[in-house]
Amino acid sequence: MDLIKEIRSVPDFPKKGIVFRDITTLLKSKEALACAVDALYDHYKGLRVDKVVSVESRGYILGAPLAYKLGAGFVPIRKPGKLPAATLKQEYALEYGTDAVEIHKDAISAGERILLHDDLLATGGTIGAACQLVEKLGGKIVGVSFLIELTFLQARKRLGQYDIFSLIKYDSE
Amino acid sequence: MDLIKEIRSVPDFPKKGIVFRDITTLLKSKEALACAVDALYDHYKGLRVDKVVSVESRGYILGAPLAYKLGAGFVPIRKPGKLPAATLKQEYALEYGTDAVEIHKDAISAGERILLHDDLLATGGTIGAACQLVEKLGGKIVGVSFLIELTFLQARKRLGQYDIFSLIKYDSE
Repeated sequence: MDLIKEIRSVPDFPKKGIVFRDITTLLKSKEALACAVDALYDHYKGLRVDKVVSVESRGYILGAPLAYKLGAGFVPIRKPGKLPAATLKQEYALEYGTDAVEIHKDAISAGERILLHDDLLATGGTIGAACQLVEKLGGKIVGVSFLIELTFLQARKRLGQYDIFSLIKYDSE
Repeated sequence: MDLIKEIRSVPDFPKKGIVFRDITTLLKSKEALACAVDALYDHYKGLRVDKVVSVESRGYILGAPLAYKLGAGFVPIRKPGKLPAATLKQEYALEYGTDAVEIHKDAISAGERILLHDDLLATGGTIGAACQLVEKLGGKIVGVSFLIELTFLQARKRLGQYDIFSLIKYDSE
């Protein structure tokens, strides 16, 4: 199944000049959803994974079934103020200004093998911050996966120390 | 497995006097995550389900694996302004003021059999709005499921027309 055909491209969202890659058309298809989860699972099934960590909120939609299928636990990374217990926070740079993400301090134990998943790899700011949080808790990152990668933004240069896998690649905007 | 033991109760979150039922301790356990997904699946496996619809963002974490396992598609309901294509919006009342949720207009076709899932049934405002969106698109709601139900808030009275199932019940705050 050619998953890229299941993505809807929406021009000028969220602002003029941006082509938004909409994954909801893929997710609503039972065949495409199964294909995407199975392809991620097939890539990682030989690896021992203790927990899948995903970023709020679209990252949860494939990250959680992947955790379930790998027999791993699932850890949500959230926007600041959403997690109720003690958290670690990591800021990261945006085009203008900064944003931040948080993880529960007890979400990961030292030495656990962690697979990160998010829906989209653009410039890599969010996932980079997520990786820092995991490593601050002592997690060992065994893979970083995406449904979509915008290869022309060259985030792999920024995330060079990690093993990155993406199901769908866009080479230009 | 007694899933209620996997929930962490956090007093005074998000504000004084509220006991927050934190599901992240359940999700991070591979055994508890598998148990929760399997229990939801077992409850609905005899029912034909075309799509699972979940509410942003914690609802996605069990809703998506449930969709995958049932062989259904997955539809995210989001906060206003997040979905890129044409949407339907539904407002609902909060204790003070209103909030709203949106669904893509093409997310559901008339006659499709829909299972809704969210992490928590409290007063039922959010899930009630989600059900209205599904029905406005012509979906037939075959079930409404939750990880946690706060039974003392009596949301079932409000949602009496639906078949409701929850894995964990709290009879008092």
